[in-house]
Amino acid sequence: MNIYHEILLPNCMINKDHPRYESLKLREKVVDAYNRGILAESGMIAHGRGEAFDYLLGEETTSNAKKAVQAAAAALILAKYPVISVNGNTAALVPNEIVKLADDLNAKIEINLFHRTEKRVSIIKNILNDAGAKNILGTYNEKKAMIRGLNGPRASSSREGVYIADVVLVPLEDGDRAEALVKLDKLLITIDLNPLSRTAKTANITIVDNIVRAIPNLIQAVHELNNINDSYLHQIVRDFNNQENLEESIKKISDKHTGRVKT
Amino acid sequence: MNIYHEILLPNCMINKDHPRYESLKLREKVVDAYNRGILAESGMIAHGRGEAFDYLLGEETTSNAKKAVQAAAAALILAKYPVISVNGNTAALVPNEIVKLADDLNAKIEINLFHRTEKRVSIIKNILNDAGAKNILGTYNEKKAMIRGLNGPRASSSREGVYIADVVLVPLEDGDRAEALVKLDKLLITIDLNPLSRTAKTANITIVDNIVRAIPNLIQAVHELNNINDSYLHQIVRDFNNQENLEESIKKISDKHTGRVKT
Repeated sequence: MNIYHEILLPNCMINKDHPRYESLKLREKVVDAYNRGILAESGMIAHGRGEAFDYLLGEETTSNAKKAVQAAAAALILAKYPVISVNGNTAALVPNEIVKLADDLNAKIEINLFHRTEKRVSIIKNILNDAGAKNILGTYNEKKAMIRGLNGPRASSSREGVYIADVVLVPLEDGDRAEALVKLDKLLITIDLNPLSRTAKTANITIVDNIVRAIPNLIQAVHELNNINDSYLHQIVRDFNNQENLEESIKKISDKHTGRVKT
Repeated sequence: MNIYHEILLPNCMINKDHPRYESLKLREKVVDAYNRGILAESGMIAHGRGEAFDYLLGEETTSNAKKAVQAAAAALILAKYPVISVNGNTAALVPNEIVKLADDLNAKIEINLFHRTEKRVSIIKNILNDAGAKNILGTYNEKKAMIRGLNGPRASSSREGVYIADVVLVPLEDGDRAEALVKLDKLLITIDLNPLSRTAKTANITIVDNIVRAIPNLIQAVHELNNINDSYLHQIVRDFNNQENLEESIKKISDKHTGRVKT
């Protein structure tokens, strides 16, 4: 195919066959989300960090990420009160998929922003509503509970959401919040492209993958495991070792690139 | 010290002793530069990518980066017509240092923007003027020459600058431009935190380091090598093997992180 598509920026024509076309399309989505007020500036910088780690992963789902997805799906199915936390980058990239996953799991969706403003909460609420979400937590119309160990707006959580959840899926979460949630004895599942981040190391289950691949994989895994008996699901969760999985992810990245500079 | 400094964002108090304080201060600078019109959105995303690679490097200058700095300084001193190319991120992070380096080398400074607009060129010109630069190329008041192999505004270069230079320092450059410049037989020096990038692999000398450390190091190396005889400088340049240097940088990053996940 030799048709050029103009994406992202007027000066920059990107061929659809470009090996990094998908990544460039995501970047366009993120810039657009920033311009629509979904993201704070730091959300764009965070996306750049993610791009770098995804690039190192080869922009594909590893077998380790697949293993983590299985464990995450099992834990979410077993949960008494699962909650999915949504921040700006998540709302920008996978709003429909988040709503589908929440529906399939009968989980609550809660908006949790690092840089929380009433306006951003309201924009993200609208996006999730447009994607079909009915009952969205973490807005300004409800009673809040404060998470121990955090200060300021980041400490706030919904009394009907993260605060009482037993299992929380918090994609792209910051380290302080991740630590505070684990201290509250939640089973914490995260999606983080950086296997070395504090969040990745703190969570019980870390899916080292791009959220645009991880959430669809999670939807599929939930579908596959949904009718499996609980004792088998418990075993999947028990058998998953997050530290080992992260070590393997790091090793995969290393092996992929050592000795590979060809000019 | 237990004094907290509010940096970057009102909700986020960062201790000055925070191990990543410098990185967070840079992020603040980048967000500020975006708000002042110095950076395009993609410049913020690019900064995020850089952050990720700097994080992997341990946010410090490696011995390989030091070797590359020596070679770069030697090549710049030997140059008949050295030019330093400045983009938005460079202007945001090290304007004073760029002007100092150009003065020390008697090199020209040329503004080259990936997303070129008259407004951004003018803002960056003012920043460089404020930093003491006298004759800035790449503005709208001069005759342009087109670089073969590039299209659109990115192809433009100054007839008195990059177009006729024998040695060009192009920090944080995109792969297409790097390739086009090397094809024009320029000796290309770049600063790039990603040792796997096309720019890093295309340049003759790649300094794998954060620009805020690399430019001061380059100023110092130029100072140290300035009175050394040419034949020795030629030998430094000849002895430098970019591919080997990049391989070693990648190996250093790998070794640093393999087996290091401790929860």
